[in-house]
Amino acid sequence: MPLGEDHVKLTVAYDGGEFFGFQRQREEPTVQSVLEAILGNMAGRPVVVYGSGRTDSGVHAWGQVVCFRPPVAMSVDRWPRALNRLLPPSLVVRHAEVVPGDFDPVRWARWKHYRYRMSITDVLSPFEQRYVHHLWFDPDIDAMRRAASHLLGRRDFASLQVSGRPVNSTVRCMYQMSVTARDDLVMVDMVADGFLYKMARSIVGTLLEVGRGSMKAGDMQDILAARDRSLAGPTAPARGLYLMRVCY
Amino acid sequence: MPLGEDHVKLTVAYDGGEFFGFQRQREEPTVQSVLEAILGNMAGRPVVVYGSGRTDSGVHAWGQVVCFRPPVAMSVDRWPRALNRLLPPSLVVRHAEVVPGDFDPVRWARWKHYRYRMSITDVLSPFEQRYVHHLWFDPDIDAMRRAASHLLGRRDFASLQVSGRPVNSTVRCMYQMSVTARDDLVMVDMVADGFLYKMARSIVGTLLEVGRGSMKAGDMQDILAARDRSLAGPTAPARGLYLMRVCY
Repeated sequence: MPLGEDHVKLTVAYDGGEFFGFQRQREEPTVQSVLEAILGNMAGRPVVVYGSGRTDSGVHAWGQVVCFRPPVAMSVDRWPRALNRLLPPSLVVRHAEVVPGDFDPVRWARWKHYRYRMSITDVLSPFEQRYVHHLWFDPDIDAMRRAASHLLGRRDFASLQVSGRPVNSTVRCMYQMSVTARDDLVMVDMVADGFLYKMARSIVGTLLEVGRGSMKAGDMQDILAARDRSLAGPTAPARGLYLMRVCY
Repeated sequence: MPLGEDHVKLTVAYDGGEFFGFQRQREEPTVQSVLEAILGNMAGRPVVVYGSGRTDSGVHAWGQVVCFRPPVAMSVDRWPRALNRLLPPSLVVRHAEVVPGDFDPVRWARWKHYRYRMSITDVLSPFEQRYVHHLWFDPDIDAMRRAASHLLGRRDFASLQVSGRPVNSTVRCMYQMSVTARDDLVMVDMVADGFLYKMARSIVGTLLEVGRGSMKAGDMQDILAARDRSLAGPTAPARGLYLMRVCY
Protein backbone atom coordinates (compact mmCIF):
# COMPACT_ATOMS: atom_id res chain seq x y z
CA MET A 1 0.00 0.00 0.00
CA PRO A 2 1.53 3.36 -0.98
CA LEU A 3 2.45 5.70 1.89
CA GLY A 4 -0.17 8.26 0.93
CA GLU A 5 -2.91 5.74 1.52
CA ASP A 6 -1.77 4.77 4.97
CA HIS A 7 -2.91 6.61 8.04
CA VAL A 8 -1.13 7.11 11.36
CA LYS A 9 -2.70 5.75 14.53
CA LEU A 10 -1.53 7.30 17.80
CA THR A 11 -1.97 6.17 21.37
CA VAL A 12 -2.19 9.32 23.46
CA ALA A 13 -2.41 10.10 27.19
CA TYR A 14 -3.81 13.30 28.60
CA ASP A 15 -4.69 15.05 31.83
CA GLY A 16 -8.41 15.64 31.35
CA GLY A 17 -8.37 18.51 33.81
CA GLU A 18 -6.47 20.57 31.26
CA PHE A 19 -8.93 20.15 28.39
CA PHE A 20 -12.59 20.79 27.68
CA GLY A 21 -13.04 17.18 26.69
CA PHE A 22 -11.86 15.40 23.56
CA GLN A 23 -14.12 16.82 20.90
CA ARG A 24 -13.27 19.94 18.90
CA GLN A 25 -14.93 23.14 20.14
CA ARG A 26 -14.89 26.59 18.72
CA GLU A 27 -13.25 28.41 21.65
CA GLU A 28 -12.00 26.08 24.34
CA PRO A 29 -8.91 23.86 24.10
CA THR A 30 -9.81 20.24 23.52
CA VAL A 31 -7.63 17.22 22.79
CA GLN A 32 -8.82 17.04 19.22
CA SER A 33 -8.36 20.76 18.54
CA VAL A 34 -4.85 20.86 20.01
CA LEU A 35 -3.75 17.89 17.87
CA GLU A 36 -5.41 19.31 14.76
CA ALA A 37 -3.79 22.71 15.27
CA ILE A 38 -0.28 21.21 15.52
CA LEU A 39 -0.75 18.88 12.55
CA GLY A 40 -2.35 21.69 10.58
CA ASN A 41 0.67 23.89 11.22
CA MET A 42 2.96 21.13 9.98
CA ALA A 43 0.90 20.65 6.85
CA GLY A 44 0.06 24.24 6.07
CA ARG A 45 -3.55 23.18 5.63
CA PRO A 46 -6.31 21.79 7.88
CA VAL A 47 -5.82 18.21 9.11
CA VAL A 48 -8.66 16.24 10.67
CA VAL A 49 -7.95 13.97 13.64
CA TYR A 50 -10.40 11.17 14.43
CA GLY A 51 -10.70 9.66 17.90
CA SER A 52 -11.96 6.31 19.18
CA GLY A 53 -14.67 8.26 20.98
CA ARG A 54 -15.23 11.38 23.00
CA THR A 55 -14.12 11.73 26.57
CA ASP A 56 -15.93 14.36 28.62
CA SER A 57 -14.33 17.44 30.11
CA GLY A 58 -12.18 16.37 33.04
CA VAL A 59 -11.94 12.68 32.06
CA HIS A 60 -8.35 11.47 31.72
CA ALA A 61 -6.84 9.10 29.20
CA TRP A 62 -3.87 6.82 29.32
CA GLY A 63 -4.65 5.02 26.08
CA GLN A 64 -6.96 7.08 23.88
CA VAL A 65 -6.54 6.26 20.18
CA VAL A 66 -6.60 8.82 17.40
CA CYS A 67 -5.75 8.63 13.72
CA PHE A 68 -5.10 10.97 10.85
CA ARG A 69 -3.79 11.07 7.32
CA PRO A 70 -0.12 12.10 7.72
CA PRO A 71 0.37 15.65 6.44
CA VAL A 72 4.10 15.09 5.91
CA ALA A 73 6.06 11.97 4.95
CA MET A 74 7.84 10.65 8.03
CA SER A 75 8.83 7.24 9.33
CA VAL A 76 6.06 6.18 11.73
CA ASP A 77 8.35 5.73 14.73
CA ARG A 78 9.37 9.40 14.49
CA TRP A 79 5.84 10.71 15.00
CA PRO A 80 5.74 10.46 18.84
CA ARG A 81 8.87 12.54 19.36
CA ALA A 82 7.99 15.03 16.61
CA LEU A 83 4.59 15.69 18.14
CA ASN A 84 5.68 15.59 21.79
CA ARG A 85 8.06 18.47 21.13
CA LEU A 86 5.12 20.61 20.08
CA LEU A 87 2.36 19.34 22.40
CA PRO A 88 1.75 20.73 25.89
CA PRO A 89 3.02 18.37 28.64
CA SER A 90 -0.60 17.59 29.57
CA LEU A 91 -1.03 15.68 26.27
CA VAL A 92 1.56 13.15 25.14
CA VAL A 93 1.88 10.64 22.33
CA ARG A 94 2.88 7.26 23.74
CA HIS A 95 2.96 5.22 20.55
CA ALA A 96 2.44 5.46 16.80
CA GLU A 97 1.75 2.86 14.14
CA VAL A 98 0.66 2.66 10.54
CA VAL A 99 -2.92 1.64 9.78
CA PRO A 100 -4.71 1.24 6.46
CA GLY A 101 -6.44 4.32 5.09
CA ASP A 102 -9.89 2.91 5.84
CA PHE A 103 -9.11 2.38 9.54
CA ASP A 104 -12.09 3.66 11.55
CA PRO A 105 -11.12 4.25 15.21
CA VAL A 106 -14.75 4.16 16.34
CA ARG A 107 -16.11 1.17 14.42
CA TRP A 108 -13.01 -0.98 14.48
CA ALA A 109 -12.71 -0.82 18.29
CA ARG A 110 -13.29 -4.30 19.74
CA TRP A 111 -13.32 -3.23 23.38
CA LYS A 112 -12.46 -0.35 25.65
CA HIS A 113 -11.08 -0.43 29.16
CA TYR A 114 -12.07 2.33 31.58
CA ARG A 115 -10.69 2.59 35.11
CA TYR A 116 -12.17 4.63 37.94
CA ARG A 117 -9.90 5.59 40.86
CA MET A 118 -11.12 6.53 44.34
CA SER A 119 -9.28 7.22 47.57
CA ILE A 120 -10.55 6.53 51.08
CA THR A 121 -7.63 8.25 52.79
CA ASP A 122 -8.51 10.61 55.63
CA VAL A 123 -6.68 13.61 54.15
CA LEU A 124 -6.16 13.47 50.40
CA SER A 125 -2.71 14.48 49.20
CA PRO A 126 -2.77 17.74 47.20
CA PHE A 127 -0.75 15.87 44.55
CA GLU A 128 -3.56 13.32 44.08
CA GLN A 129 -6.59 15.59 44.11
CA ARG A 130 -6.78 16.03 40.36
CA TYR A 131 -6.51 12.33 39.68
CA VAL A 132 -8.79 10.57 42.10
CA HIS A 133 -12.29 10.87 43.59
CA HIS A 134 -11.98 11.33 47.35
CA LEU A 135 -14.57 9.32 49.29
CA TRP A 136 -15.74 10.43 52.71
CA PHE A 137 -16.80 6.93 53.69
CA ASP A 138 -15.35 3.44 53.70
CA PRO A 139 -17.32 1.58 51.03
CA ASP A 140 -18.44 -2.02 51.36
CA ILE A 141 -16.24 -3.55 48.66
CA ASP A 142 -17.96 -6.94 48.72
CA ALA A 143 -21.36 -5.36 48.16
CA MET A 144 -19.95 -3.31 45.28
CA ARG A 145 -18.52 -6.48 43.74
CA ARG A 146 -21.85 -8.25 43.99
CA ALA A 147 -23.62 -5.27 42.39
CA ALA A 148 -20.98 -5.10 39.64
CA SER A 149 -21.45 -8.76 38.77
CA HIS A 150 -25.00 -7.98 37.61
CA LEU A 151 -23.55 -5.81 34.84
CA LEU A 152 -21.53 -8.57 33.21
CA GLY A 153 -22.49 -9.83 29.78
CA ARG A 154 -24.91 -8.43 27.24
CA ARG A 155 -27.08 -5.86 29.03
CA ASP A 156 -29.31 -2.92 28.25
CA PHE A 157 -27.57 0.01 29.93
CA ALA A 158 -30.35 2.57 29.29
CA SER A 159 -30.56 3.23 33.05
CA LEU A 160 -26.84 3.79 33.29
CA GLN A 161 -26.31 6.40 30.61
CA VAL A 162 -27.08 10.08 30.53
CA SER A 163 -29.44 10.56 27.62
CA GLY A 164 -29.12 13.41 25.18
CA ARG A 165 -27.04 11.76 22.48
CA PRO A 166 -29.03 9.66 20.02
CA VAL A 167 -27.92 6.02 19.84
CA ASN A 168 -29.28 3.11 17.85
CA SER A 169 -29.15 0.76 20.78
CA THR A 170 -28.45 0.99 24.51
CA VAL A 171 -27.32 -2.64 24.65
CA ARG A 172 -23.63 -3.18 25.31
CA CYS A 173 -21.58 -6.22 26.24
CA MET A 174 -19.58 -5.90 29.48
CA TYR A 175 -16.69 -8.37 29.34
CA GLN A 176 -15.05 -7.56 32.66
CA MET A 177 -16.02 -5.69 35.81
CA SER A 178 -13.79 -5.62 38.85
CA VAL A 179 -13.73 -3.71 42.10
CA THR A 180 -10.37 -3.77 43.87
CA ALA A 181 -9.11 -2.17 47.08
CA ARG A 182 -5.48 -1.74 48.02
CA ASP A 183 -4.26 0.54 50.80
CA ASP A 184 -6.32 3.74 50.48
CA LEU A 185 -7.16 3.19 46.81
CA VAL A 186 -10.38 1.69 45.45
CA MET A 187 -10.55 0.99 41.71
CA VAL A 188 -13.33 -0.06 39.39
CA ASP A 189 -12.18 -1.54 36.08
CA MET A 190 -14.67 -1.90 33.26
CA VAL A 191 -14.08 -3.58 29.90
CA ALA A 192 -16.90 -3.47 27.34
CA ASP A 193 -17.46 -3.45 23.61
CA GLY A 194 -18.63 0.13 23.99
CA PHE A 195 -19.75 2.71 26.52
CA LEU A 196 -22.81 4.95 26.30
CA TYR A 197 -22.66 8.64 27.22
CA LYS A 198 -21.43 8.94 30.85
CA MET A 199 -22.07 5.20 31.32
CA ALA A 200 -18.80 4.48 33.14
CA ARG A 201 -19.39 7.28 35.65
CA SER A 202 -23.05 6.31 36.08
CA ILE A 203 -22.01 2.74 36.87
CA VAL A 204 -19.47 3.93 39.45
CA GLY A 205 -21.92 6.39 41.01
CA THR A 206 -24.43 3.57 41.38
CA LEU A 207 -21.85 1.14 42.77
CA LEU A 208 -20.95 3.80 45.36
CA GLU A 209 -24.60 4.02 46.45
CA VAL A 210 -24.37 0.28 47.10
CA GLY A 211 -20.98 0.72 48.76
CA ARG A 212 -22.33 3.18 51.29
CA GLY A 213 -25.49 1.17 51.95
CA SER A 214 -28.10 3.42 50.29
CA MET A 215 -28.82 0.71 47.74
CA LYS A 216 -28.53 -3.06 47.86
CA ALA A 217 -26.35 -5.07 45.49
CA GLY A 218 -29.47 -6.81 44.12
CA ASP A 219 -31.04 -3.45 43.24
CA MET A 220 -28.72 -3.33 40.24
CA GLN A 221 -30.90 -5.88 38.45
CA ASP A 222 -34.04 -3.81 38.99
CA ILE A 223 -32.27 -0.65 37.86
CA LEU A 224 -31.20 -2.29 34.60
CA ALA A 225 -34.66 -3.74 34.01
CA ALA A 226 -36.42 -0.39 34.54
CA ARG A 227 -34.47 1.43 31.79
CA ASP A 228 -34.84 4.59 33.90
CA ARG A 229 -31.78 6.73 34.72
CA SER A 230 -33.51 8.27 37.73
CA LEU A 231 -33.31 4.96 39.62
CA ALA A 232 -29.50 4.78 39.33
CA GLY A 233 -26.96 6.64 41.43
CA PRO A 234 -25.44 10.01 40.56
CA THR A 235 -22.74 10.43 37.92
CA ALA A 236 -19.35 10.07 39.65
CA PRO A 237 -16.91 13.00 39.15
CA ALA A 238 -14.84 13.08 35.96
CA ARG A 239 -11.45 13.40 37.71
CA GLY A 240 -11.47 9.72 38.81
CA LEU A 241 -12.05 8.29 35.31
CA TYR A 242 -9.38 7.10 32.88
CA LEU A 243 -9.71 5.67 29.38
CA MET A 244 -6.98 3.06 29.76
CA ARG A 245 -7.00 1.21 26.46
CA VAL A 246 -8.85 0.77 23.19
CA CYS A 247 -8.30 -2.60 21.57
CA TYR A 248 -8.58 -3.19 17.83
CA MET B 1 -0.19 27.43 80.58
CA PRO B 2 -3.64 28.89 79.83
CA LEU B 3 -5.16 28.09 76.46
CA GLY B 4 -4.93 31.67 75.22
CA GLU B 5 -1.17 31.56 75.51
CA ASP B 6 -0.77 28.42 73.47
CA HIS B 7 -0.40 28.53 69.72
CA VAL B 8 -1.38 25.95 67.13
CA LYS B 9 1.31 24.40 64.93
CA LEU B 10 0.13 22.83 61.69
CA THR B 11 1.88 20.51 59.28
CA VAL B 12 0.55 21.34 55.82
CA ALA B 13 1.02 19.93 52.32
CA TYR B 14 0.42 21.88 49.15
CA ASP B 15 0.69 21.70 45.39
CA GLY B 16 3.08 24.57 44.69
CA GLY B 17 1.82 24.89 41.13
CA GLU B 18 -1.43 26.31 42.51
CA PHE B 19 0.12 29.13 44.57
CA PHE B 20 2.38 32.10 44.02
CA GLY B 21 4.72 30.81 46.68
CA PHE B 22 4.26 30.73 50.43
CA GLN B 23 4.58 34.36 51.38
CA ARG B 24 1.62 36.75 51.52
CA GLN B 25 1.20 38.93 48.44
CA ARG B 26 -1.23 41.68 47.74
CA GLU B 27 -3.01 40.19 44.75
CA GLU B 28 -1.99 36.63 44.04
CA PRO B 29 -3.05 33.57 46.06
CA THR B 30 -0.26 32.33 48.32
CA VAL B 31 -0.24 29.62 50.98
CA GLN B 32 0.04 32.18 53.76
CA SER B 33 -2.71 34.43 52.41
CA VAL B 34 -5.16 31.55 51.89
CA LEU B 35 -4.63 30.30 55.47
CA GLU B 36 -4.87 33.81 56.89
CA ALA B 37 -8.09 34.52 54.98
CA ILE B 38 -9.79 31.39 56.33
CA LEU B 39 -8.63 31.91 59.92
CA GLY B 40 -9.52 35.58 59.69
CA ASN B 41 -13.04 34.68 58.61
CA MET B 42 -13.37 32.34 61.59
CA ALA B 43 -12.12 35.02 63.97
CA GLY B 44 -13.86 38.04 62.50
CA ARG B 45 -10.53 39.87 62.68
CA PRO B 46 -7.10 39.52 61.01
CA VAL B 47 -5.05 36.46 62.02
CA VAL B 48 -1.34 36.22 61.22
CA VAL B 49 0.11 32.86 60.14
CA TYR B 50 3.86 32.30 60.49
CA GLY B 51 5.72 29.73 58.41
CA SER B 52 8.99 27.87 58.89
CA GLY B 53 10.25 29.70 55.81
CA ARG B 54 9.17 30.74 52.36
CA THR B 55 8.85 28.36 49.49
CA ASP B 56 9.04 29.88 46.02
CA SER B 57 6.27 29.91 43.49
CA GLY B 58 5.86 26.39 42.12
CA VAL B 59 7.73 24.62 44.94
CA HIS B 60 5.66 21.91 46.63
CA ALA B 61 5.43 20.98 50.28
CA TRP B 62 4.57 17.76 52.02
CA GLY B 63 5.61 18.92 55.49
CA GLN B 64 5.64 22.72 55.68
CA VAL B 65 5.08 23.98 59.24
CA VAL B 66 2.99 27.03 60.11
CA CYS B 67 1.72 28.38 63.39
CA PHE B 68 -0.82 30.92 64.62
CA ARG B 69 -2.61 32.07 67.72
CA PRO B 70 -5.95 30.21 67.62
CA PRO B 71 -8.76 32.67 66.86
CA VAL B 72 -11.38 30.35 68.38
CA ALA B 73 -11.16 27.86 71.26
CA MET B 74 -11.10 24.35 69.81
CA SER B 75 -9.52 21.05 70.79
CA VAL B 76 -6.26 20.84 68.82
CA ASP B 77 -7.10 17.57 67.10
CA ARG B 78 -10.19 19.19 65.55
CA TRP B 79 -8.17 21.82 63.67
CA PRO B 80 -7.17 19.67 60.65
CA ARG B 81 -10.72 18.69 59.75
CA ALA B 82 -12.12 22.17 60.50
CA LEU B 83 -9.60 23.79 58.16
CA ASN B 84 -9.63 21.10 55.47
CA ARG B 85 -13.36 21.69 54.97
CA LEU B 86 -12.61 25.30 54.05
CA LEU B 87 -9.27 24.99 52.27
CA PRO B 88 -8.92 24.28 48.53
CA PRO B 89 -7.89 20.66 47.80
CA SER B 90 -4.46 21.91 46.72
CA LEU B 91 -3.63 22.84 50.36
CA VAL B 92 -4.30 20.39 53.18
CA VAL B 93 -3.60 20.25 56.90
CA ARG B 94 -2.00 16.91 57.76
CA HIS B 95 -1.47 17.39 61.50
CA ALA B 96 -2.00 19.89 64.32
CA GLU B 97 -0.41 20.23 67.74
CA VAL B 98 -0.20 22.73 70.57
CA VAL B 99 3.02 24.72 70.98
CA PRO B 100 3.95 27.39 73.53
CA GLY B 101 3.12 30.97 72.63
CA ASP B 102 6.77 31.85 72.03
CA PHE B 103 7.25 29.05 69.46
CA ASP B 104 9.16 30.52 66.52
CA PRO B 105 8.79 28.30 63.42
CA VAL B 106 11.86 29.84 61.78
CA ARG B 107 14.35 29.97 64.67
CA TRP B 108 13.30 26.80 66.43
CA ALA B 109 13.73 24.67 63.29
CA ARG B 110 16.61 22.22 63.83
CA TRP B 111 16.73 20.89 60.30
CA LYS B 112 14.77 20.80 57.07
CA HIS B 113 14.49 18.04 54.54
CA TYR B 114 14.05 18.92 50.87
CA ARG B 115 13.56 16.35 48.13
CA TYR B 116 14.02 16.91 44.41
CA ARG B 117 12.31 14.51 41.99
CA MET B 118 13.40 13.92 38.40
CA SER B 119 12.23 11.47 35.76
CA ILE B 120 14.34 9.96 33.02
CA THR B 121 11.41 8.27 31.30
CA ASP B 122 11.23 8.66 27.55
CA VAL B 123 7.71 10.10 27.51
CA LEU B 124 6.62 11.73 30.75
CA SER B 125 3.11 10.86 31.89
CA PRO B 126 0.75 13.87 31.77
CA PHE B 127 -0.20 12.97 35.36
CA GLU B 128 3.40 13.45 36.54
CA GLN B 129 4.37 16.58 34.65
CA ARG B 130 3.46 18.99 37.45
CA TYR B 131 5.37 17.01 40.04
CA VAL B 132 8.70 16.07 38.54
CA HIS B 133 11.49 17.57 36.44
CA HIS B 134 11.74 15.64 33.19
CA LEU B 135 15.34 15.00 32.14
CA TRP B 136 16.28 14.52 28.51
CA PHE B 137 19.42 12.60 29.36
CA ASP B 138 20.43 9.68 31.54
CA PRO B 139 22.51 11.22 34.31
CA ASP B 140 25.65 9.61 35.74
CA ILE B 141 24.32 8.85 39.22
CA ASP B 142 27.73 7.89 40.64
CA ALA B 143 29.26 11.19 39.54
CA MET B 144 26.32 13.07 41.06
CA ARG B 145 26.85 11.18 44.34
CA ARG B 146 30.54 12.05 44.40
CA ALA B 147 29.75 15.72 43.73
CA ALA B 148 27.07 15.71 46.42
CA SER B 149 29.48 14.33 49.01
CA HIS B 150 31.48 17.58 48.80
CA LEU B 151 28.48 19.43 50.18
CA LEU B 152 28.26 17.47 53.42
CA GLY B 153 29.07 19.19 56.71
CA ARG B 154 29.56 22.84 57.52
CA ARG B 155 30.03 24.68 54.22
CA ASP B 156 29.77 28.17 52.79
CA PHE B 157 26.98 27.91 50.23
CA ALA B 158 27.43 31.43 48.79
CA SER B 159 27.96 29.92 45.30
CA LEU B 160 24.80 27.85 45.59
CA GLN B 161 22.27 30.50 46.49
CA VAL B 162 20.58 33.14 44.42
CA SER B 163 21.50 36.43 46.05
CA GLY B 164 19.00 39.18 46.57
CA ARG B 165 17.85 38.45 50.08
CA PRO B 166 20.17 39.76 52.81
CA VAL B 167 21.51 37.05 55.13
CA ASN B 168 23.93 37.28 58.06
CA SER B 169 25.86 34.24 56.94
CA THR B 170 25.95 31.94 53.95
CA VAL B 171 27.34 29.07 56.02
CA ARG B 172 24.98 26.14 56.54
CA CYS B 173 25.44 22.63 57.82
CA MET B 174 24.40 19.85 55.43
CA TYR B 175 23.66 16.74 57.49
CA GLN B 176 22.61 14.42 54.69
CA MET B 177 22.82 14.39 50.89
CA SER B 178 21.70 11.44 48.85
CA VAL B 179 21.15 10.74 45.18
CA THR B 180 18.99 7.71 44.47
CA ALA B 181 17.72 6.16 41.26
CA ARG B 182 14.86 3.70 41.01
CA ASP B 183 13.11 2.80 37.79
CA ASP B 184 12.67 6.07 35.90
CA LEU B 185 12.88 8.24 39.00
CA VAL B 186 16.00 10.05 40.24
CA MET B 187 15.78 11.76 43.65
CA VAL B 188 18.07 14.10 45.51
CA ASP B 189 17.43 14.30 49.27
CA MET B 190 18.98 17.16 51.23
CA VAL B 191 18.87 17.64 55.02
CA ALA B 192 20.43 20.80 56.44
CA ASP B 193 20.06 23.17 59.36
CA GLY B 194 18.88 25.75 56.88
CA PHE B 195 18.66 26.56 53.20
CA LEU B 196 19.58 29.84 51.52
CA TYR B 197 17.40 31.39 48.82
CA LYS B 198 17.03 28.87 45.95
CA MET B 199 19.89 26.83 47.44
CA ALA B 200 18.21 23.44 47.04
CA ARG B 201 17.46 24.08 43.36
CA SER B 202 20.95 25.51 42.74
CA ILE B 203 22.48 22.38 44.25
CA VAL B 204 20.36 20.13 42.03
CA GLY B 205 21.06 22.23 38.94
CA THR B 206 24.78 21.89 39.61
CA LEU B 207 24.55 18.16 40.32
CA LEU B 208 22.79 17.77 36.98
CA GLU B 209 25.67 19.53 35.20
CA VAL B 210 27.90 16.87 36.73
CA GLY B 211 25.37 14.16 35.85
CA ARG B 212 25.42 15.06 32.18
CA GLY B 213 29.19 15.46 32.06
CA SER B 214 29.50 19.24 31.66
CA MET B 215 31.19 19.46 35.05
CA LYS B 216 33.29 17.04 37.04
CA ALA B 217 32.36 15.83 40.51
CA GLY B 218 35.51 17.45 41.92
CA ASP B 219 34.49 20.84 40.49
CA MET B 220 32.02 21.11 43.36
CA GLN B 221 34.88 21.92 45.75
CA ASP B 222 36.13 24.75 43.53
CA ILE B 223 32.61 26.10 43.11
CA LEU B 224 32.12 26.27 46.88
CA ALA B 225 35.54 27.85 47.43
CA ALA B 226 34.95 30.58 44.82
CA ARG B 227 31.79 31.93 46.48
CA ASP B 228 30.58 32.84 42.99
CA ARG B 229 27.10 31.80 41.82
CA SER B 230 28.10 32.12 38.16
CA LEU B 231 30.34 29.05 38.45
CA ALA B 232 27.49 26.79 39.58
CA GLY B 233 24.83 25.19 37.40
CA PRO B 234 21.43 26.69 36.62
CA THR B 235 18.57 26.71 39.12
CA ALA B 236 16.56 23.53 38.61
CA PRO B 237 12.80 24.03 37.94
CA ALA B 238 10.51 24.53 40.93
CA ARG B 239 8.10 21.72 40.06
CA GLY B 240 10.57 18.99 41.12
CA LEU B 241 11.16 20.38 44.63
CA TYR B 242 9.34 19.37 47.82
CA LEU B 243 9.77 20.63 51.38
CA MET B 244 9.34 17.23 53.05
CA ARG B 245 9.82 17.95 56.74
CA VAL B 246 10.83 20.60 59.24
CA CYS B 247 12.13 19.16 62.50
CA TYR B 248 11.95 21.03 65.85
